[in-house]
Amino acid sequence: AADMLRAEMDLVSKACGVYESFGFEPLQTPAFEFADALGKFLPDDDRPNTGVFALRDDDEQWLSLRYDHTAPLARFVAENYDALAKPYRRYQAGSVFRNEKPGPGRFREFVQCDADTVGAGSAASDAEMIMIAAEIARAAGLADGQFQVRVNNRKLLDGLLEIAGVENDAEKRLKTLRAVDKLDRLGRDGVEALLGEGREDESGDFTEGAKLSPTAIQSVLDFTELTGRSRGETTATLETLIGASSRGAEGVAELRAIDDLLEATGYSEADVSFDTSIVRGLGYYTGAVFELELLTDIRDRKGRPVRIGSIGGGGRYDDLVSRFRGQAVPATGFSFGVSRFLSALEKLDKIEQSVQPPVIICVFDKALMADYFKMAAELRSQGIRAEVFVGNGNVTKQMKYADRRGAKVALLMGEDEIAKGVVTVKDLEAGALAAKAIETNEEWKDARPAQVEVARGQLVAAVKEILGE
Amino acid sequence: AADMLRAEMDLVSKACGVYESFGFEPLQTPAFEFADALGKFLPDDDRPNTGVFALRDDDEQWLSLRYDHTAPLARFVAENYDALAKPYRRYQAGSVFRNEKPGPGRFREFVQCDADTVGAGSAASDAEMIMIAAEIARAAGLADGQFQVRVNNRKLLDGLLEIAGVENDAEKRLKTLRAVDKLDRLGRDGVEALLGEGREDESGDFTEGAKLSPTAIQSVLDFTELTGRSRGETTATLETLIGASSRGAEGVAELRAIDDLLEATGYSEADVSFDTSIVRGLGYYTGAVFELELLTDIRDRKGRPVRIGSIGGGGRYDDLVSRFRGQAVPATGFSFGVSRFLSALEKLDKIEQSVQPPVIICVFDKALMADYFKMAAELRSQGIRAEVFVGNGNVTKQMKYADRRGAKVALLMGEDEIAKGVVTVKDLEAGALAAKAIETNEEWKDARPAQVEVARGQLVAAVKEILGE
Repeated sequence: AADMLRAEMDLVSKACGVYESFGFEPLQTPAFEFADALGKFLPDDDRPNTGVFALRDDDEQWLSLRYDHTAPLARFVAENYDALAKPYRRYQAGSVFRNEKPGPGRFREFVQCDADTVGAGSAASDAEMIMIAAEIARAAGLADGQFQVRVNNRKLLDGLLEIAGVENDAEKRLKTLRAVDKLDRLGRDGVEALLGEGREDESGDFTEGAKLSPTAIQSVLDFTELTGRSRGETTATLETLIGASSRGAEGVAELRAIDDLLEATGYSEADVSFDTSIVRGLGYYTGAVFELELLTDIRDRKGRPVRIGSIGGGGRYDDLVSRFRGQAVPATGFSFGVSRFLSALEKLDKIEQSVQPPVIICVFDKALMADYFKMAAELRSQGIRAEVFVGNGNVTKQMKYADRRGAKVALLMGEDEIAKGVVTVKDLEAGALAAKAIETNEEWKDARPAQVEVARGQLVAAVKEILGE
Repeated sequence: AADMLRAEMDLVSKACGVYESFGFEPLQTPAFEFADALGKFLPDDDRPNTGVFALRDDDEQWLSLRYDHTAPLARFVAENYDALAKPYRRYQAGSVFRNEKPGPGRFREFVQCDADTVGAGSAASDAEMIMIAAEIARAAGLADGQFQVRVNNRKLLDGLLEIAGVENDAEKRLKTLRAVDKLDRLGRDGVEALLGEGREDESGDFTEGAKLSPTAIQSVLDFTELTGRSRGETTATLETLIGASSRGAEGVAELRAIDDLLEATGYSEADVSFDTSIVRGLGYYTGAVFELELLTDIRDRKGRPVRIGSIGGGGRYDDLVSRFRGQAVPATGFSFGVSRFLSALEKLDKIEQSVQPPVIICVFDKALMADYFKMAAELRSQGIRAEVFVGNGNVTKQMKYADRRGAKVALLMGEDEIAKGVVTVKDLEAGALAAKAIETNEEWKDARPAQVEVARGQLVAAVKEILGE
């Protein structure tokens, strides 16, 4: 658990380093927001306050714990609009809270790590977010081919619906969207039926279709099957499919602008692809949307492939801040959940421990405590973690403690050693290996493997050697 | 604000580095605890749940937001007692929440940074906490003489009360403690009166005294005046004063053991003093208590001395975990509030910015965006923060933006520069200085101070030179 926590802090620190390198500044909003302020920014318009922890303070005001970092950012920008240099670029890492039943991989408190640019409507500001996602994957130790940023644009689907002639027919629009969303489950034929007259499922239930024209159905199907091509091919095909819609053409132009910047800065097709099947649930997205996904074939303990899917994502949300302000405030951002990202890294065996376990200094004789403390201070001054055993128990118990702490080195020193000017240094990993090879207790005592006496002055050097430093 | 936040993250990171060096491991408990579990650990027995934010989850269970990191640690250890290697040593940094009226320097959410050793009753484990406090002060950049850890022991006062013959008289005990606590305000004479028959204040109100014997009064007064001596003198005097009480003798022995370890590892009298006036409010302390204080003469903007006082502290709390367990679980810890520590550092001018502001790449011509992105990527690959202006606005507006972001360097490149293979590099600090010296706008345009054209290939070197790297 401590190792995972340290890895979590490392990942946050690396991600913040990437945000900093792109010129973002830290912001820390409070865990609480006034409930009425937060309510306007909740992701699900239909169910305001669902999933939010709320409480009342001493003044009987309702407060909500933040659900994400985006709503508090919108509130912060709206409140400080005139004082902020625009575009306002901030990053933030911290716990967010969901009042939901916890489940596997779903927690009531988890750390999100976000960056946003508020006050920029350019495709360049979207491209930057996509690059940041890729850079964070790299900073986390993922190699080319182990991750991919997949980019889509909400305007493309809008354009498609315009071409299909349903942009003003709310019911047809909804049915079309629902049909597209079922591609994974029903396949092409099922979607085709739902876009047309309708579909009868195995139980005999009939779902009425969107009743699009055959041409419109063909366009929608072509659109959803636009994966697996190069960025250039994708934009060219999209141009043909939906270029006639002004909204669609806008989406295509934005993708092209992003492609140009990716090309110029060396992001390959493997790093970033365009993928019309990317949806992202949040209702507030208005333009570019993207997800950072792991691509590697990951297998579980039984050898079955594990689908990790998206470990973060983001996009453009031009209407969120303007709910508070009379004017348009375009914005774009990226966000990832730290523990989800980490469990993906763990499955890829990409978690490296940056910190060595401490050297444990055994207390052989309590009268020598000052000497033990001196040794510990000496090791620490050389950058080596060191801990004197300050609990209760004999040396056997202390060696068990060292083992449970995962220590690689234990030090022993009694009156005898003091008189001889030496310290006994135990290499615990080598000792554990040797123990397996030795038959009897007597043999063990005779050999005392992986244990050496070194001159007190050579202590630091001897410890460094075992630690491989 | 971003600078202070970065400084906050730096301080937490340095403190965690010190905790790690002493062998502590990270732990992150949830922000919420079940209210009934937390209630047992609240600092003020008289007013349970005062100051705690509470709410109900979907299952109608009462949850409390953590008030500190100690109560959740006690809950965690009690719950996982058998699985933990003892002594259990953890550190934790994170927000704690107080349901109180906010005021100057008093917030409803603030970050605390703690380390605790659970399952160790030795004076050595207290000594370690005292050393940690000093090391964190040093890691934060404080020089010798700018900080001091002041150590006391609750057992000393217990012993004093025993000597004074009031250890079993709850009323006399309370009156004695209250009298001692008023030394700062009433002076020696006032305390003497309160320890004796009583005292009439200026308004004529009479406070009845503890009615101690003249000898007992003398002992208490001697005890409270034991500051300003060396650690050795203090323990010798305490021995004389309260050595006859077994509880007092225990406290003296613990101080002596701590002194031995401090001596052995080079903590001077200036670093750590023994001070019988240190009380620390929390009721749960049972032995050593200490505070980390700033000593420097700090003046406010009007030149008046500012009293910062304690910026952190800790001590031994042997009874806290045992409230949950049948057995004794001795524990000791250190805690500091990050923003209080930081505002002290700020007053001492000890906050150093570890991060340079970003280089701002102006967008002179949107058609050249790919070139601007290339420059930014190049700078970043050399460890230089760089940001292309992705908002809206002409170059004048962009220069204002660079100024507000505190940028030291801005880059300009249009078609002319591209054709010549150069970039215009503006040194914004030098430019601001030069601007003060130049009279007219025309003069400015002619001179174009602090602005040079460099070959595109020399860009990184030119920027590094201005940044002084």
